[in-house]
Amino acid sequence: MKMLLFAVLALPCLAAAQTAPPPLPLDPKIERLRDAALKDDLAYDITEGLTTEIGQRLAGTEAEARARTWAVARLKGLGFSNVHIETFDMPVWVRGEERAEIVAPFPQKLVIAALGNSGATPAAGLTGEVVAFDNVADLEAAPDARVRGKIVFVSHGMKPTQDGSSYGVFGAARRQGPSIASTKGAAAIVIRSIGTDYHRNPHTGVQAWAEGVRPIPAGALSLPDADQLQRILKRGRPVTMRLVLTPRNIGKRQSGNVIAEVPGRDRNAGIVLVGGHLDSWDLGTGAIDDAAGVAITTAAAKRVMQSGRPLRTIRVVWFGAEEVGLFGGLDYLAKHGAEKHAVIAESDFGADRVWKFDSKASAGAQPTVDLIARALAPLGIGKGSTSEASGSDIGPLSASGVPTFALRQDGTRYFDVHHTPDDTLDKIDPEQMRQNVAAWTAMIAIAANARVQFGPVAAAR
Amino acid sequence: MKMLLFAVLALPCLAAAQTAPPPLPLDPKIERLRDAALKDDLAYDITEGLTTEIGQRLAGTEAEARARTWAVARLKGLGFSNVHIETFDMPVWVRGEERAEIVAPFPQKLVIAALGNSGATPAAGLTGEVVAFDNVADLEAAPDARVRGKIVFVSHGMKPTQDGSSYGVFGAARRQGPSIASTKGAAAIVIRSIGTDYHRNPHTGVQAWAEGVRPIPAGALSLPDADQLQRILKRGRPVTMRLVLTPRNIGKRQSGNVIAEVPGRDRNAGIVLVGGHLDSWDLGTGAIDDAAGVAITTAAAKRVMQSGRPLRTIRVVWFGAEEVGLFGGLDYLAKHGAEKHAVIAESDFGADRVWKFDSKASAGAQPTVDLIARALAPLGIGKGSTSEASGSDIGPLSASGVPTFALRQDGTRYFDVHHTPDDTLDKIDPEQMRQNVAAWTAMIAIAANARVQFGPVAAAR
Repeated sequence: MKMLLFAVLALPCLAAAQTAPPPLPLDPKIERLRDAALKDDLAYDITEGLTTEIGQRLAGTEAEARARTWAVARLKGLGFSNVHIETFDMPVWVRGEERAEIVAPFPQKLVIAALGNSGATPAAGLTGEVVAFDNVADLEAAPDARVRGKIVFVSHGMKPTQDGSSYGVFGAARRQGPSIASTKGAAAIVIRSIGTDYHRNPHTGVQAWAEGVRPIPAGALSLPDADQLQRILKRGRPVTMRLVLTPRNIGKRQSGNVIAEVPGRDRNAGIVLVGGHLDSWDLGTGAIDDAAGVAITTAAAKRVMQSGRPLRTIRVVWFGAEEVGLFGGLDYLAKHGAEKHAVIAESDFGADRVWKFDSKASAGAQPTVDLIARALAPLGIGKGSTSEASGSDIGPLSASGVPTFALRQDGTRYFDVHHTPDDTLDKIDPEQMRQNVAAWTAMIAIAANARVQFGPVAAAR
Repeated sequence: MKMLLFAVLALPCLAAAQTAPPPLPLDPKIERLRDAALKDDLAYDITEGLTTEIGQRLAGTEAEARARTWAVARLKGLGFSNVHIETFDMPVWVRGEERAEIVAPFPQKLVIAALGNSGATPAAGLTGEVVAFDNVADLEAAPDARVRGKIVFVSHGMKPTQDGSSYGVFGAARRQGPSIASTKGAAAIVIRSIGTDYHRNPHTGVQAWAEGVRPIPAGALSLPDADQLQRILKRGRPVTMRLVLTPRNIGKRQSGNVIAEVPGRDRNAGIVLVGGHLDSWDLGTGAIDDAAGVAITTAAAKRVMQSGRPLRTIRVVWFGAEEVGLFGGLDYLAKHGAEKHAVIAESDFGADRVWKFDSKASAGAQPTVDLIARALAPLGIGKGSTSEASGSDIGPLSASGVPTFALRQDGTRYFDVHHTPDDTLDKIDPEQMRQNVAAWTAMIAIAANARVQFGPVAAAR
């Protein structure tokens, strides 16, 4: 829509129209490849297999190791080349018992889940008065004396957004809240889950303790429980809560990235890297986060592979240990950062419809970016930013100045189930997933065959 | 709509038209009372209070006792007369630990909740092979040898229905499944939850062991977990499950009904009994089941009380111990069955819109039934059956031949949260709840003041 408007407005300006380069031709083969992918259920099949035969795949656990073995067998079976695992060690935190209850004034149980790297309560639990804040800024502004020895409760009002940007804003309660609370001497912190649903399934997620900060128990209440606590607090009487959270750090364990390739004709043309992450949080089966991502990108790469040997090597990476600290992405950067990557892209936002194509590429690559946008438009995908595109595992590589594409998925319902026990296969809409595969197929096919340099792009400061 | 059609068809038939009694006049005061109730949030307020200040109210527990104290204070505060508790003793079963996992071929945890009166596994758990059946009839037809020593899994395909009738059909898996499985020598039984949602919150519910049947562990998997188990079973390899369910029978404890009245002018005119049940299952806060029911009927009775002293006494009953075996209804029958009840009605199906008015009353009362139907029509409520109407706690009294009314609520989303941790305040739609209060207000106002005998009706055989 934006492009069309621009074209209409530009019509009277002949000089400008004359200097614009002619659009690149869209190969009908790409269109056929894209449209054939709309009937392909390989991505759903991979998602079904991984979530059923493995289930949860917490990074560094035996389940994630089984998932790597599963992935290798699947990728080899699909005909990919150079399928292998690259292992690395990372610290592992595992969930223990999790209970929360209001002791007074209205005794009742609440549903809680520990946040990643949460400290532990004594086995018998920890009891304290609740002190509530509407947001992290209010917590930060509070005098230490108000917080010391208390159980901090941070609420907030995250609402669904299509682009998922509310996660960035409201996620601060999870990411920074625990360290701020601990610094102020809090005994523990519970937050309203960073989520948008109304089910009694808390949203876990990682948080890292700021340098020198003592870990304290840190948990997320489900949204109905957070509402309940707020209603109880509104009665104006002191509220006492008892928490039992007994997670443990079990030391360093092995995780790994699973890598597969579609070999290109020209080793010097650079790699097109696509993928998602293989690990998941431990509560659900990681269907939308991120079995869908590895499945969509793998299914698309497979379709391009079947259409003939590409110019560039397509490398599919199923990253390990994303959820708990991007360890897979960092290991990949350490091992492969010096290789020539033509362009990189990651799928890690579920399987709902792609609605926008963002990119970060050189000025010289813009005709190819436009070509991809034209190939995507029939799928209902608009051209978005040409200066910002990233991904989680590919974030470090992208920040180092590697050209990056992003097929942005609709996040309206993503945070209903993200990091909860509810992240299960039934949340995948097969039709929307097929649209994803079609979009990735078109993008990969063009990126892997375009005789253009996508870089250089500036590294992030 | 049905009435209108009938009137149109009847037009040519003058003889019939002449013999029909003229409709009773609808007092504009009733219409005003009904419409004023559409702006009344007392029912929501009661629901909010009970679910927030008490939370879950499992029958026979200390929480249910606190709920009775709460109810007495609330009902007295609202100006009701003769507010009191009638206690009774009943056997109490309490939930223990609940864990389920697939041991082989794909190790992973499943989410389970014990069914009421479930037997217990050893503390360390029970491991067995899963034998699956599509429904209870298939289980019943299976040779004992196929079931003996195994963990039975009963699946089924319950879908939402507006009238809730699918609960009757598919609920057999919960009500009869455990006794059938035990009789055939099963080690345990797990069923797909009797529900219609896709969240990892199992639906509990009562089941009673058939005479002489040995209790075995009996649990419900959430629907995503039941789907997962079915997908695993479809792989065709033997499936081993481990169950830990440690509920206990803790013996007889006290429960009770809370009763309040709006005294009528004529002690001989019979009582109009309305109500719902105060107890809830232990997983959620019992918002739709059945804080809503006691709240709606109480708010409506209060509005009628405020409009002037009625002809008949209106008795509001907040029954105890409904979920676990209708103990409150039976105690009420024992203590009050001999009193003259003009008509009885119960609200126990959530707080979504009333869509149908069913009744079971004498032929002579039909003009009054029609009058109530006319008063309800502007709320979008149609006239339903004139031969069938009942309720859970009032079931025994209704079956004994007491005239009964039923305002049927829309059950399309009721079994998404019924008997799950998700039965919380946020599931109440305040606008639909107000429509309920308006409907009950109109019905009670007419029933409490109509100079008509609603009986006799035949007792159920």
